[in-house]
Amino acid sequence: MGYSALLLGALVAAPAFGQTFRRTAACPQLGCVFPPDQTDFIAGQTFDLRIEVQAPVNGSEAYNNGQVDKNFSIKIGGQGAELVDAAQFFGLSDPEAEKYNFTYYEDLFAEDAHAPTPVNVVAKSYRNLQLHTPGTYEVVLTYNNGDTTKATWTVADLAEKKKAKNVIFFVGDGMAGSMLSAARLLGHKTINGKYQSKLKLDEAPGYGSQMTHSLDSFITDSANSASALFSGKKMTVNGLNAYTLIQNSSTGKAYGDPKVETIFEMFRRIEGGQVGVVSKAYIADATPAAVCTHTSQRSQYTAIIEQYLSGVAGNYSWFPWEGVDLLFGGGGENFLPGPGNGNISQFDRWASEGYQVGYTKTELEAFDNAQRALAIFTQGNISTWLDQNVYTDLLDLAVTPQGKRGARDQPGLKDMTLKAIDILHTRSKERNTGFMLMSEAALIDKEMHVLDIDRALGEVLELDDTVRATLKHLEEIGELDDTLVVVTADHGHGFDVFGSADTKYLQQQNSDRAKRSAIGTYQNSGLSAYQVPQDVLANNHTIFQSPQGDGFPVTWDPRYTIAHGWAAIPDHREDFEVNKDHERVPAVKNTTGYFFNPEDNQRGFAMTGNLGTGDGQGVHSLVDVPVYAFGPGHEYFRGVMNSPDLAFKVALALDLGRNSNVTASYRK
Amino acid sequence: MGYSALLLGALVAAPAFGQTFRRTAACPQLGCVFPPDQTDFIAGQTFDLRIEVQAPVNGSEAYNNGQVDKNFSIKIGGQGAELVDAAQFFGLSDPEAEKYNFTYYEDLFAEDAHAPTPVNVVAKSYRNLQLHTPGTYEVVLTYNNGDTTKATWTVADLAEKKKAKNVIFFVGDGMAGSMLSAARLLGHKTINGKYQSKLKLDEAPGYGSQMTHSLDSFITDSANSASALFSGKKMTVNGLNAYTLIQNSSTGKAYGDPKVETIFEMFRRIEGGQVGVVSKAYIADATPAAVCTHTSQRSQYTAIIEQYLSGVAGNYSWFPWEGVDLLFGGGGENFLPGPGNGNISQFDRWASEGYQVGYTKTELEAFDNAQRALAIFTQGNISTWLDQNVYTDLLDLAVTPQGKRGARDQPGLKDMTLKAIDILHTRSKERNTGFMLMSEAALIDKEMHVLDIDRALGEVLELDDTVRATLKHLEEIGELDDTLVVVTADHGHGFDVFGSADTKYLQQQNSDRAKRSAIGTYQNSGLSAYQVPQDVLANNHTIFQSPQGDGFPVTWDPRYTIAHGWAAIPDHREDFEVNKDHERVPAVKNTTGYFFNPEDNQRGFAMTGNLGTGDGQGVHSLVDVPVYAFGPGHEYFRGVMNSPDLAFKVALALDLGRNSNVTASYRK
Repeated sequence: MGYSALLLGALVAAPAFGQTFRRTAACPQLGCVFPPDQTDFIAGQTFDLRIEVQAPVNGSEAYNNGQVDKNFSIKIGGQGAELVDAAQFFGLSDPEAEKYNFTYYEDLFAEDAHAPTPVNVVAKSYRNLQLHTPGTYEVVLTYNNGDTTKATWTVADLAEKKKAKNVIFFVGDGMAGSMLSAARLLGHKTINGKYQSKLKLDEAPGYGSQMTHSLDSFITDSANSASALFSGKKMTVNGLNAYTLIQNSSTGKAYGDPKVETIFEMFRRIEGGQVGVVSKAYIADATPAAVCTHTSQRSQYTAIIEQYLSGVAGNYSWFPWEGVDLLFGGGGENFLPGPGNGNISQFDRWASEGYQVGYTKTELEAFDNAQRALAIFTQGNISTWLDQNVYTDLLDLAVTPQGKRGARDQPGLKDMTLKAIDILHTRSKERNTGFMLMSEAALIDKEMHVLDIDRALGEVLELDDTVRATLKHLEEIGELDDTLVVVTADHGHGFDVFGSADTKYLQQQNSDRAKRSAIGTYQNSGLSAYQVPQDVLANNHTIFQSPQGDGFPVTWDPRYTIAHGWAAIPDHREDFEVNKDHERVPAVKNTTGYFFNPEDNQRGFAMTGNLGTGDGQGVHSLVDVPVYAFGPGHEYFRGVMNSPDLAFKVALALDLGRNSNVTASYRK
Repeated sequence: MGYSALLLGALVAAPAFGQTFRRTAACPQLGCVFPPDQTDFIAGQTFDLRIEVQAPVNGSEAYNNGQVDKNFSIKIGGQGAELVDAAQFFGLSDPEAEKYNFTYYEDLFAEDAHAPTPVNVVAKSYRNLQLHTPGTYEVVLTYNNGDTTKATWTVADLAEKKKAKNVIFFVGDGMAGSMLSAARLLGHKTINGKYQSKLKLDEAPGYGSQMTHSLDSFITDSANSASALFSGKKMTVNGLNAYTLIQNSSTGKAYGDPKVETIFEMFRRIEGGQVGVVSKAYIADATPAAVCTHTSQRSQYTAIIEQYLSGVAGNYSWFPWEGVDLLFGGGGENFLPGPGNGNISQFDRWASEGYQVGYTKTELEAFDNAQRALAIFTQGNISTWLDQNVYTDLLDLAVTPQGKRGARDQPGLKDMTLKAIDILHTRSKERNTGFMLMSEAALIDKEMHVLDIDRALGEVLELDDTVRATLKHLEEIGELDDTLVVVTADHGHGFDVFGSADTKYLQQQNSDRAKRSAIGTYQNSGLSAYQVPQDVLANNHTIFQSPQGDGFPVTWDPRYTIAHGWAAIPDHREDFEVNKDHERVPAVKNTTGYFFNPEDNQRGFAMTGNLGTGDGQGVHSLVDVPVYAFGPGHEYFRGVMNSPDLAFKVALALDLGRNSNVTASYRK
């Protein structure tokens, strides 16, 4: 390659990379291969292969007046072996070529000028594939008179030994390490710089961090980041175990997006294992959906609910999925009959498939541990730990799955998780299998988005409390030595605590600038006021022991609160006080975008945002997130990892790799 | 304890804890013991014991009209043994009681009202003590007619085996994990979500995190946090291996503050080992000073420079310190003759003590590796990596140690560290000892304070590059297997990346709100534009390899930069561009405090701050910071730790604990 090619590249490459909009997610060239270059597979993991050849009509990449060259080929071969046509390699007949087109903007200027670039596409999909031999594979797409797009895939080695029978995978959605530091400060007590109790997570023998970035962007969404954790594949933003081909729009169902199998699906397919899904979010939300559903667009809630029960619809070749063993969460609105849901009551449908169905904590606890179960407690998200345990009047505003106000009989994450373990344990014992559970502390993320730090940290502490209770319960039921417990986040939010705020002083100041004087930094931050100090000087004479917070604050409303902030903010007001009677709405929209909400944190000072004015909430961030592991295989989870590594480590602990296509029977 | 005592405590305790101002740092009761309750010691570690009895004249803790009860006693005993008077326990004569007084404000309202609380104090100091037997010790101060202040101290077990001969301790000042994520994004390249090269730190076999909070506040300063890392004792804010007794003011030298010995001092005292100090800051700054100096007030620069050379001044009993083996950094102003420095040229003084003295990188490299060395390259801090390597015109503004503009012949952190290793290695080999080196990437913190993210991330990448080069060099000189390398931070800054910014678009918008539209989040963040992608489509035909960044950005000035923010901000303007021709000054002061600087980031949009208007810079934060370890003993550095733990782990690897008072000879 000569210097001139390098220079030419440098000149024309600028508009094609790193920009706001891109032609096709994760496809820098006009020929696209999904799964793309650098993808790793578990041996025997199922996936689809899709190739596309694209021809932009105009813009910096315009090709042949938008005419796609239809003479293209896709070849594949193991390391050192001759490349053969993909259809031959996988023993399939060659699929028919599909055509579609889309438009995109090259940058913000093009968007302002309403000058889109149309792109014509020809594509092929090869479905339901597996690679069984560890090692590397070369994939070569040849198109446009000899241009090539190459991919190197790697199939990981098989495990030498099965270490764990069961896996419980906790996800603290949006939980950056800074939130653990803050949650510890609120929930635990120090004496002279030494914590007298700690987070359970602080004791994890396996500890590391992982990078959350997407395949196609360095800031991830919850769909693709959970997919990376559960399938071992970096996904395009919004993709649930299926690659998004066009950025910012669904490819629709007309041709289907290329799918990858998750470790939960492999566990079910190979071992007939029990699989449970628990979340405090509406249950069609991205993280729970990433356990076993497939769509490039996370917003397809109806399809997601259906896939939990019956797998990928019959149009596309994929192995059978006979339903999760349990599904606990919120989001009743996606189960009710209605136009968006095909006028079917999913509650009735699941009941007719043999599931126990419940709508309250009371009903949850009464479930038969031997039977499959669906429990949906609210519309939208389940209420926060703070609302369920401290400011309980707010439960009057919570909505039942059927749409009535006053959903008071709700479980917390711990209740759902322990019941899920009981059901999975009972059923797996009867079937001589193991179990896998995904349990999501979903509302950390939801509350960070709306800058409600007290509710977010309550959820972090609830997750920690749930992990503590889980390990104790596993010991009680004799499964502790056989169960790997992993706890991580799917991404962070830029957040930190930087001092304390004298809320009493702040309230009494009359200007925005004067209110900021209430903040104490460095030595003036003082000690945590959320835990009454253990030794308190009372009337200068009496020493007494304060009440214990048991891992939660003794008070959420001290005079001296944490002063905290976010890296990414909409316009909003800040008063550093707990919101007792409402959930936060930091910004409200008018005709020119989001402005600070004058009714939110009225006693606080105003801060202008640094996000686009189309954003009324905080957003996800780049920071690597912590990883904690307990139990057999915990030693795999050490040091700095990439998000897909976690799926491979779980697969290694469970010995999920197979050098042939294995299907076990699953008994409902 | 009855309920009424509890209630009474809750009522009166509020003003005494967690507030902006406190009576005495880390002393909640009127009787104070330093080192306080919960302190851990290495066996044979030297320390001072100080007790105080205080009587506030007014306020919520007013006692006996401000009259101190002079009948107090201090007793100590090993676990289970009878308590005896401290003087007897340590075999000393009882020290004379000292008196002093101070005032403080109980809260911000008291400050506004100019209503201080005077406090009278009687105190005693017991100096130069050691505890030799592992186990717990009880310390009881009895005062005020029977009130007691108790402390439990613990002496750690001796090491079973010496694992490491040498230790290199890197400190990335202010380096939160989020900055590593950002630095990786700038300095390394991904293909489809997989980094093609990584940070050296990402490969550390020992990985964990540590809590940075102070003894007396949850937000730390760099002095006390470094002291915790190096002495194993949480310190009061601003304390350098000496407890601050009065918050916000020095106790002065009149009576001296209670000191603790560092692991560097123990290593020298016990083994006669070589000790080197390297920093990119002015060398009297907190982190380097925490290696072997003692003062409760980090701003005593003259005393710090003197202590590097000759230890604690003779007034107070402390073991001899015969000077660091090398001292490389900035801060020439503290070495020049002048009123603040006692009209002594420390350069001349060090030279007369046999040190090689140099002022440039050229002179540094010419140093004889067998001789002790002082090298000071600038006044103030050494120039940033970005200024030394990219925007080199800015070196014309750098000031030589002697005070002239144009300090162009400066070393980077890598240059200083590798030369330090050569000197320490040569000298320790000749003396049959090991060596300890502290090397500080100091400017991460300095640049984060002024919100100059490019310069801060350049320093992070320089640290990583230095660690990589250090491990390579240790292998070359045959010391890799004998050298423990630890890398951590002393605290973080709340910071994160949340998207990309189209700087070209931002510049062309005319309003603050419109400029914010340039920010792309989630899928619109795109890929890092700091590394030209490896495979670039040039004119739709030619594929070429882009130049490598070798762990640094290929460009610092792409059109699409990282969009980033801080948890704690002064008023400032943001344009998301590298500052090529000046260092950032985000805010400027007028009569009512700091406002955004109109000359800083002129093309950017304005953001109001959330810090007190007396702050013109960002501040430290709560987040736990990462810990990385390589070499023998790296396995000790795993999981979630507290900052003092690191000193104990280094002591364990070096086998520094002693069950008797040991003093080795040190050869200059």
